[in-house]
Amino acid sequence: MAKALIVGSVALDTIETPHGTAERILGGSASFGSYAASYFTDVSIVGVVGEDFPPEAIDQFKARGIGVEGLEVREGKTFHWSGRYEYDMNEAHTKATELNVFADFRPKLTAEQRKTPYVFLANIHPQLQLDVLEQMEAPKLVAVDTMNFWIEGFKKELTGVIERCDFLLMNDGEARQFCEKPNLIECGRELRRLGPSTVAIKKGEHGALLFHNGGISFFPSYPVMELKDPTGAGDTFAGALIGYLARKDDTGADNLVRAVQAGTCMASFVVEDFSLTRVANLGPGELRERVAMLREMVRLPEPDEAALESRLASGVL
Amino acid sequence: MAKALIVGSVALDTIETPHGTAERILGGSASFGSYAASYFTDVSIVGVVGEDFPPEAIDQFKARGIGVEGLEVREGKTFHWSGRYEYDMNEAHTKATELNVFADFRPKLTAEQRKTPYVFLANIHPQLQLDVLEQMEAPKLVAVDTMNFWIEGFKKELTGVIERCDFLLMNDGEARQFCEKPNLIECGRELRRLGPSTVAIKKGEHGALLFHNGGISFFPSYPVMELKDPTGAGDTFAGALIGYLARKDDTGADNLVRAVQAGTCMASFVVEDFSLTRVANLGPGELRERVAMLREMVRLPEPDEAALESRLASGVL
Repeated sequence: MAKALIVGSVALDTIETPHGTAERILGGSASFGSYAASYFTDVSIVGVVGEDFPPEAIDQFKARGIGVEGLEVREGKTFHWSGRYEYDMNEAHTKATELNVFADFRPKLTAEQRKTPYVFLANIHPQLQLDVLEQMEAPKLVAVDTMNFWIEGFKKELTGVIERCDFLLMNDGEARQFCEKPNLIECGRELRRLGPSTVAIKKGEHGALLFHNGGISFFPSYPVMELKDPTGAGDTFAGALIGYLARKDDTGADNLVRAVQAGTCMASFVVEDFSLTRVANLGPGELRERVAMLREMVRLPEPDEAALESRLASGVL
Repeated sequence: MAKALIVGSVALDTIETPHGTAERILGGSASFGSYAASYFTDVSIVGVVGEDFPPEAIDQFKARGIGVEGLEVREGKTFHWSGRYEYDMNEAHTKATELNVFADFRPKLTAEQRKTPYVFLANIHPQLQLDVLEQMEAPKLVAVDTMNFWIEGFKKELTGVIERCDFLLMNDGEARQFCEKPNLIECGRELRRLGPSTVAIKKGEHGALLFHNGGISFFPSYPVMELKDPTGAGDTFAGALIGYLARKDDTGADNLVRAVQAGTCMASFVVEDFSLTRVANLGPGELRERVAMLREMVRLPEPDEAALESRLASGVL
């Protein structure tokens, strides 16, 4: 089992959905990412919070064995994101983003953190992602996530991060926006050519596409019946897959596919309740059961090759 | 090998895409459906055209062995649909629909057609679909497709068709609209409760969900690199799967899954060119290769079940 380092935002979120509203609940890309990863392996979180950050939330990280020495507490207020989801829950509408202490955060890693083999640079300013990359000492795998905001305003810095990472995560809209192409297969291939040997394109309820050394793999999403709050699904997906890779300390094609499966299923839990509530209460066997069910959903009988040839004489065609 | 009957529209389409425009080309749900089905089995088409319908198009059907005795030629003009696709090719914007001879079409089946075991009621007025159903003598499998227009204005008639069919096809937007629910899994289950033992929800580039006696199956779309004209993809999908089922004369769960695979792959060809051009020029082995590639895309290594359990003591969770 190898260790994982998760760098990103730690936030207090205010979220409105058709099913209810929650105020100033624990959120942020590093919170979701490290929480999901901690299910699988030893994790350290790197981020910043303000004086208003609830001590119970730090206790919640510690209870999961998450190292919080990299979680800086600074004068001021914690990063606050406020968003709203409509009926179909597919898209978050940002109502307010208050960076607060996050505005001039510069992550400084400890000597031990610099040696972490598995790193997830969750969605933050690409310049901060580069700062962290500069401090790392020969990590085995660096995964990177981002968002449309950085593609629009900081594409050069973001491209620098992508060129230096091993595993890039983007959602479908972001991949199309970054590559300026509608075809996701072309996007995935183009992104791989920039550097990362693995690219995951996340499609929300439609699953994910993985471009890797072994080709292209396709993953459905676990069919969630009680979607309550989609916030953090992508970060949970990424955190779980990094945690899984670190646990097995194996970046081969088969283990990548297994890690992505673990990620899609872990993400299917987080959206069933606000914040980290559902992931915090995952019972034994629950994750295994969803992975098994998804396997069954894509199980194919042996093809009947003769039946796939035309009954018509080839001259007719 | 059993026979298939395909009932629906035969049209002349005028199509604008970012890659070019084509005027008055062969289209219509029954054209695409019967053409795809004829790859696999003996097919009869039931529809109506006007005096302006090009005799070469009828010859094209005949060359595929498609029985055209049910293709009425009437005084007046052929049904004409004119549409436009934007950059992302995901949605058709209808510019004009001229029903012409289609307006008062009442399909009358021959004694032989009434005995056809596999029937595809492609997208037409649900009342016409019911008229055909009334004439059928104990078919083994009736598949039904529809569109948003009939859901909006003729839901009662459409519900009557759905209650009497075995295999319902809808795209994701139509399923949500019909069921008035955002969750596709709930929609699929609800639609099955209406009658059909099998429901396919088509999601375009995101693949298809199949709800059947064996559970839920998930199919990715074949990654099309040269998308030229998406018209007819759904009809081709349905026609191929009906043709496949008829060829094997087997409606068991495994054969349903194989049929849907054949359908998704056949649909991936039709969109590579206008009208039926690409499907008409399918070489030996081409369909088999795409089915094999899709199998590889969803192939999963054996799961490591221990790695899917939390490393944390259950007391901590």
